[in-house]
Amino acid sequence: MATVTQPSTGPMRDFASVFGKLRPHMAALDAFLREQIAAFEPEIRAMADYCIDASGKRIRPALVFLSGGNDRNLVQPELVKVAAVVELVHLATLVHDDIMDEADLRRGRRTATREYGPEAAVLLGDALFAHALHLASQFPTPAVCRAVSDSTRKVCAGEIIQTLRRGDANVSLVDYHRVIDLKTAELFRVSCALGSELAGYVPGFVIAAARFGRQLGVAYQIYDDLADFFGHEKKIGKTLGTDLHSGKMTLPLLLLLEGIESRERSELFAEIRGEKPARPAHWIAAMEDKGIFDRVALEIENELVTGEDALAPFAELAPAKGLRQLSDVLRDQVTVLRA
Amino acid sequence: MATVTQPSTGPMRDFASVFGKLRPHMAALDAFLREQIAAFEPEIRAMADYCIDASGKRIRPALVFLSGGNDRNLVQPELVKVAAVVELVHLATLVHDDIMDEADLRRGRRTATREYGPEAAVLLGDALFAHALHLASQFPTPAVCRAVSDSTRKVCAGEIIQTLRRGDANVSLVDYHRVIDLKTAELFRVSCALGSELAGYVPGFVIAAARFGRQLGVAYQIYDDLADFFGHEKKIGKTLGTDLHSGKMTLPLLLLLEGIESRERSELFAEIRGEKPARPAHWIAAMEDKGIFDRVALEIENELVTGEDALAPFAELAPAKGLRQLSDVLRDQVTVLRA
Repeated sequence: MATVTQPSTGPMRDFASVFGKLRPHMAALDAFLREQIAAFEPEIRAMADYCIDASGKRIRPALVFLSGGNDRNLVQPELVKVAAVVELVHLATLVHDDIMDEADLRRGRRTATREYGPEAAVLLGDALFAHALHLASQFPTPAVCRAVSDSTRKVCAGEIIQTLRRGDANVSLVDYHRVIDLKTAELFRVSCALGSELAGYVPGFVIAAARFGRQLGVAYQIYDDLADFFGHEKKIGKTLGTDLHSGKMTLPLLLLLEGIESRERSELFAEIRGEKPARPAHWIAAMEDKGIFDRVALEIENELVTGEDALAPFAELAPAKGLRQLSDVLRDQVTVLRA
Repeated sequence: MATVTQPSTGPMRDFASVFGKLRPHMAALDAFLREQIAAFEPEIRAMADYCIDASGKRIRPALVFLSGGNDRNLVQPELVKVAAVVELVHLATLVHDDIMDEADLRRGRRTATREYGPEAAVLLGDALFAHALHLASQFPTPAVCRAVSDSTRKVCAGEIIQTLRRGDANVSLVDYHRVIDLKTAELFRVSCALGSELAGYVPGFVIAAARFGRQLGVAYQIYDDLADFFGHEKKIGKTLGTDLHSGKMTLPLLLLLEGIESRERSELFAEIRGEKPARPAHWIAAMEDKGIFDRVALEIENELVTGEDALAPFAELAPAKGLRQLSDVLRDQVTVLRA
């Protein structure tokens, strides 16, 4: 009987289906996260539970499990705990992001800020973050706390810088890369570093895994910014061009601004700053016209290759194989956007 | 020459003047906090610096220094660091509180939310908190991280519960005590526990100091809630009755609600919930009429005595004397309110 191979240009393969082997690890993570609810004061347990829903992609936990993986695919309690830490930090930042974006929905359900009000959501995010650090402090040395708190400060700094520079005509490509390095790549990086370190891999591999994680994070954020313009709702369920309204200066927009003449630039900035109604369809057509999709896709590919190069000397290790698969998942997703 | 003793009914003695001996410790703390600014990304240093201003009362650092104090009054670097940790956690919660209260001013200058916008302020609070945990993780064991993250989660829980129950007619005295225990007393408690523990005092004293800190925190919050109604602007620079507008169910209000008949209760709740214009002067007069000031002052005294009782077996230790002085400062402040 012939094996049916899913073509890479077919329907998007999501992280969960590709990483079937992570299923026992993710099940252990979900059980662990549920147990954590009991640590919260009774009055806020339902709110914490609401945020720790199982519908997220759990990319950062996947990085922890893959970086610390072994040939027998055993579930390691230390990795489950650190996966919970990075996921809780991520969930806390989502709760706060949704307040700032005044978002009503995330993954098809009401955001915490919409459900409980922005006041409670600010504090709920804080409580989730505090609990993440509390879990981090249960390791025998303060190294996990140190890494996680440092990453968190960087994630926040990246978000602040992005927020302060919304609609700013002086944002350069260098500025954009700095923001995504802080707001996204940093937590990807630390997930790989902690996963491989706690699993006892040699320092050389920990450094390589961290490097891979960082590059994957950069590539992932660029993909996410591309999908904001090119991810038709039927493909990935996103409303198109929301970054245009929000004033976020992402890569497709920066490339477009580079390639249009000054009158058009003025019009685009008026829309970015909310002074005129946004015309995402118009600008997406302009991006298509100027080959911006391919330029962005090439940037993603370059980031992925740099990350894979870092893993190359460790190709025989179990985690290196698993991590490389994640690169391919992201490549597939870019292909789906192009279709 | 006769010693001139400041009468306790005279002008308010503030924490800074009573604790002149803490001056070198506070100077070391301020220098240390200024150094921390360099740890933040360049773009957000000015914002972090803005929040770490030196005009605060620094009560939590005072508790750290006093609990770990010695007869020679030496500045201990470990205590300076942990004082910075608890103060940064406190400052982070203030930044987030001001967003929720839409406060324009704090200590006579614009709040971070007013200066940088609520979006940036949410993240700035997160970054300050993350940096506090990062400092906590620099101690040799994860104990400091564990204590601080656990306390922070409780502080947030207390604030959330208070927020969710604004204007709620079912808030009882037990509920009120639970909220202030979480939102205020917890960080006072942990400041005393960490100060005495890091200074190497015996476990029995650490427990006693923690108990004292907790009771002082409860007393301090009750005082603060009393001052909201009775602290005339000329005395302590507060706008009167702001808790009435905000719907916070504080002790003076709960006692007033207990002592008025149902028609008046309905009117008061309409004002608490913002359905009618608030009449703070009317209700303050009603409180005076019903002797509520004295009942609240008695509660404060009871809390202080319970805390002092915990310290009694250790009366000969340097920190016990210093901590007891803090009780007296709070007694003085209540006396000033009464005048």
